[in-house]
Amino acid sequence: MPQIPMIGIVGGVGPYAGLDLARKVFDNTVASRDQDHLPLVLLSLPSEIADRTAYLLGELQENPGRALAEVVLKLEEIGATAVGIPCNTAHAPEIFGLMMQILREKGSELTVPHMIQETVKTIQKRLPSVRRVGVLSTTGTYESGLYPQYLERAGLEAVVPDRELQQKVHEAIYSTEFGIKAHSNPVTAKAVRIVKDAIRKLHRQGAEAIILGCTELPLAVTEKEVAGCPVIDPTEILARTLILETYPQKLKPY
Amino acid sequence: MPQIPMIGIVGGVGPYAGLDLARKVFDNTVASRDQDHLPLVLLSLPSEIADRTAYLLGELQENPGRALAEVVLKLEEIGATAVGIPCNTAHAPEIFGLMMQILREKGSELTVPHMIQETVKTIQKRLPSVRRVGVLSTTGTYESGLYPQYLERAGLEAVVPDRELQQKVHEAIYSTEFGIKAHSNPVTAKAVRIVKDAIRKLHRQGAEAIILGCTELPLAVTEKEVAGCPVIDPTEILARTLILETYPQKLKPY
Repeated sequence: MPQIPMIGIVGGVGPYAGLDLARKVFDNTVASRDQDHLPLVLLSLPSEIADRTAYLLGELQENPGRALAEVVLKLEEIGATAVGIPCNTAHAPEIFGLMMQILREKGSELTVPHMIQETVKTIQKRLPSVRRVGVLSTTGTYESGLYPQYLERAGLEAVVPDRELQQKVHEAIYSTEFGIKAHSNPVTAKAVRIVKDAIRKLHRQGAEAIILGCTELPLAVTEKEVAGCPVIDPTEILARTLILETYPQKLKPY
Repeated sequence: MPQIPMIGIVGGVGPYAGLDLARKVFDNTVASRDQDHLPLVLLSLPSEIADRTAYLLGELQENPGRALAEVVLKLEEIGATAVGIPCNTAHAPEIFGLMMQILREKGSELTVPHMIQETVKTIQKRLPSVRRVGVLSTTGTYESGLYPQYLERAGLEAVVPDRELQQKVHEAIYSTEFGIKAHSNPVTAKAVRIVKDAIRKLHRQGAEAIILGCTELPLAVTEKEVAGCPVIDPTEILARTLILETYPQKLKPY
């Protein structure tokens, strides 16, 4: 096959988040027939990639950055030139840094946009008056302070849940009984309710926009606003970045 | 990476149908966390695969079976052991036959379940009392008589739209203004209305179940019944077949 720009997606982190990213690539592409869509490969090897949050919380020894690098290299071998990783937690420096180091050592030449940086840049551009940004995420991302760090570097203030609310949001993602990872399609009413309540609470605490900082969360909340508060979807931002990196002329206007 | 069974999906025919098949693989897998899901690769190269219906209608010279074989071989190279093609029209003998011939010549060893045969088998098993089966499809599939042939071989009778209704169903799929290929997410209300009206008409003509015989159609009609008539989704049947071919112990009970 000819060497052309191609979008790669690291699937399996989680599996439905991989499909959500691919769908958002298609949704944001100017296309009216099959043949207008962009070349894309999604490789979902969930059993090989350890849980990112469990690693950050010290519950697992194995750094998932190593397995992520393997999947990215495999995507490059297939022909991908820009790869998206639809997992916010995977962008914590301990994980993303190791992955990028392995990619450099192996002579990889592809682009891996940083989902968190792109999200912060997009907020600055689309919502220039916003100063206080709420963040909902897994407890791994929460503990790592990932979003607050990047927001602060950009002169923005992070509004995060207290411990009790954080525990609820984490359960809405991870509970095997009602969480989004175990029940992605359809998402349970209970998970939707917890996430929307959390958005409202952060909004009342002063957040002027809320980042859905775990790729499972946009599966539960598809609205662009909740109770008048703009909701930011990093998966969509990553999708648009991947199109910009490969076929910028095909990006649908926002 | 170790050689393990892996599901491959030929994406791009159409792009959203590829995601729909992947989603239905995940939906039909017994899993409660990321790591429980099956290894899967989706390769979407839409610009390389000519329109299947246009070929069958004589509007294109190039048999898309050749490009389909290339994508399947690429999926095998990546590690896929069972590949699904989420396009009913691609299973017409002229296209599927050429593809399988090329795969044999190249020494391919993977399994490519035949979506139409599997659908007919599933109807016989799940709805044993049904004799008359309605079929909605592209005009390419319609003209090729694909479903009627396989249904008749199984002792079932096909109920198909008259020319006027067929034209409408085809437009619900292909119209750049309101068709499902150009507007997949969300599907337009007009496309949904046309498809549901067509289901009702075939039901009134005596069909006891209706096959959504184009992978775009389940994007418009997600119900399992319309006006009391069971609706058969070949994409879901193909998803379940792919799980059976790779990890049968992980197939969710129906």
